[in-house]
Amino acid sequence: MRIDVLETPALLIDLDVMERNLRRAADYAKAHGLRLRPHTKTHKTPALAGRQLALGAVGLTVAKVGEAEVMAQADPPELLVAYPVLGESKLRRLAGVARTARVTVALDSLLAARGLSEMAAAEAVEFGVLAELDAGFGRAGVQSATELAGLVREIAKLPRLRFEGIAFYPGHIQSTGEGGEAAIARITAALDEALDHLQQQGMPAAIVSGGSTPTLYQSHLIPRMNEIRPGTYIFNDRNTVETGACAIADCAASILATVVSTARPGQVLVDGGSKTFSSDRCGRGGFGYVLDAPDAVFTNLNEEHGYLDVRAAGRTISLGDRLRIIPNHVCTAVNLHATMYGIRGETVECEWDVAARGKLQ
Amino acid sequence: MRIDVLETPALLIDLDVMERNLRRAADYAKAHGLRLRPHTKTHKTPALAGRQLALGAVGLTVAKVGEAEVMAQADPPELLVAYPVLGESKLRRLAGVARTARVTVALDSLLAARGLSEMAAAEAVEFGVLAELDAGFGRAGVQSATELAGLVREIAKLPRLRFEGIAFYPGHIQSTGEGGEAAIARITAALDEALDHLQQQGMPAAIVSGGSTPTLYQSHLIPRMNEIRPGTYIFNDRNTVETGACAIADCAASILATVVSTARPGQVLVDGGSKTFSSDRCGRGGFGYVLDAPDAVFTNLNEEHGYLDVRAAGRTISLGDRLRIIPNHVCTAVNLHATMYGIRGETVECEWDVAARGKLQ
Repeated sequence: MRIDVLETPALLIDLDVMERNLRRAADYAKAHGLRLRPHTKTHKTPALAGRQLALGAVGLTVAKVGEAEVMAQADPPELLVAYPVLGESKLRRLAGVARTARVTVALDSLLAARGLSEMAAAEAVEFGVLAELDAGFGRAGVQSATELAGLVREIAKLPRLRFEGIAFYPGHIQSTGEGGEAAIARITAALDEALDHLQQQGMPAAIVSGGSTPTLYQSHLIPRMNEIRPGTYIFNDRNTVETGACAIADCAASILATVVSTARPGQVLVDGGSKTFSSDRCGRGGFGYVLDAPDAVFTNLNEEHGYLDVRAAGRTISLGDRLRIIPNHVCTAVNLHATMYGIRGETVECEWDVAARGKLQ
Repeated sequence: MRIDVLETPALLIDLDVMERNLRRAADYAKAHGLRLRPHTKTHKTPALAGRQLALGAVGLTVAKVGEAEVMAQADPPELLVAYPVLGESKLRRLAGVARTARVTVALDSLLAARGLSEMAAAEAVEFGVLAELDAGFGRAGVQSATELAGLVREIAKLPRLRFEGIAFYPGHIQSTGEGGEAAIARITAALDEALDHLQQQGMPAAIVSGGSTPTLYQSHLIPRMNEIRPGTYIFNDRNTVETGACAIADCAASILATVVSTARPGQVLVDGGSKTFSSDRCGRGGFGYVLDAPDAVFTNLNEEHGYLDVRAAGRTISLGDRLRIIPNHVCTAVNLHATMYGIRGETVECEWDVAARGKLQ
């Protein structure tokens, strides 16, 4: 099947680029002795999780129980839910997953740990636990080495939980706009303090799990981190380009859209807006990068309309033309599509159901 | 079933508020002799479209062929696709819908009209057409009364198309921040010119279709508009409140979320972010209105995390607490959920599949 016959908007995955992205990260992790446990939030597709495992990933990461249920289909040796699971109903479903897979949960509260332990006892399963430390991003995670040790001490007492190590999220390296070195030094110092303290208390952390896509290839600069869980790297996106972590040529995912109106001079409308691309922003402005007309500016979007300012596009764009556009944030864009099409050149080689789309619970 | 047992995040619809919203718009349309053809993009659910029809709506509006296929289940007397349909495959699917429903398409180009006419001939159906005029919003629509008459003249020549009238979108009344009166006067003048010109050319427009939720109850101030197609009014949202068109008490949709982390002082995280609320903005800032703690500020979101600044919340918010939050933009939020729960008080009275979720094509 050729791309021409696809109805638009359609989410295209350039297989050559994707495979290069997957291999590069796998090689890097191997070269530096890092456990790679990719976050599947980006592709949401068991077949692609399977490719990550085949290339040496030690397991998979998800955020939600519903994603864990889907990703269990890829038969991962280890499944990390990098999100606290609260509430009996979800915990029971997670216990169901734990019957067939080795499940670990990252959490930052005793309440979450107790809930896990109680459900593990009720359902006769076991859960691994990573205690989450806020290494400066300001989202989840306990705030100090002392708090971390306090939490780990309590986790260690709870039945049917395996304390496996710590997790953190280094998202602030890019979000503060720092050049990386200073942020890496601060994270390294925070980890040293936390890990030494745990060690001194007789509770050493076997796993030190961090790593996001923007910082992926700097991971070896944080000596005690031994696991990375990037997600976006499989496809990359305009925001990844913005952080300097990849080039446009490394973006595997694009959205094929059709020009549906040229009635207003200097502007064309394409048949995808916030329902297709998501309304996630990008530091450099705009809502996507038009591969087929890089000087067109994706200035605005409504639910079903994407607005391109084509005054400086340097080419004619006509009604009915089909344009490929790289989204700002590929994870939220993928979540809006029921299907992804794997392409090479102009040929559609395969298609995948986005099986974990909209798994909110 | 009580709300307590729902897994979060969950999309709740307050049935009393929704029914009041539906009835108010239906009564208004009736009182002013306006055809009400609600846009179903907000609820995406045939059962709710059915309620709109039962209250007197003359038909339904959709944006996509896939939505038309879903909404045909509600058996609308008239189905308006308020979006040009380009491409053989989609046109063929739309012809399938036209076999059982009276289908009209709004468009602003001869290319779109020709495609419709050719498919109508091939599939032995007929389509209605509304010619779209840009009445100042700057999105789709031809730019002048002369262009409009030129387009209508060509439409009238094409086999198997019924020219039914004109469509426009008055979204700029709120988007320019004007008080309304000046914008209404300009729209009225643009319509007068366009409609008089069509009349003089012997091509009178029977339907003059406009109307969005923010301007809903000003519709009678635009004398020649005889059809309105608001969508958001069924639920309303924080952006509708922002325009002054409703109060918080008129917002029927909220998202029930659980507090999953309180590790960072002054901040709590809830289990919904851009994948749950969408990242659509609101003029007054923030990503939602916390019904249970109106002075908490929804400052930021990532895919799965909503950040509430609770320093001024005036109440204690604890780990595991469940909070109801009104989204900025309910249409994009609904599109992210597979299920909506209709509630009265603390009771879940019904649930609906969001059948037209993610119908991008």
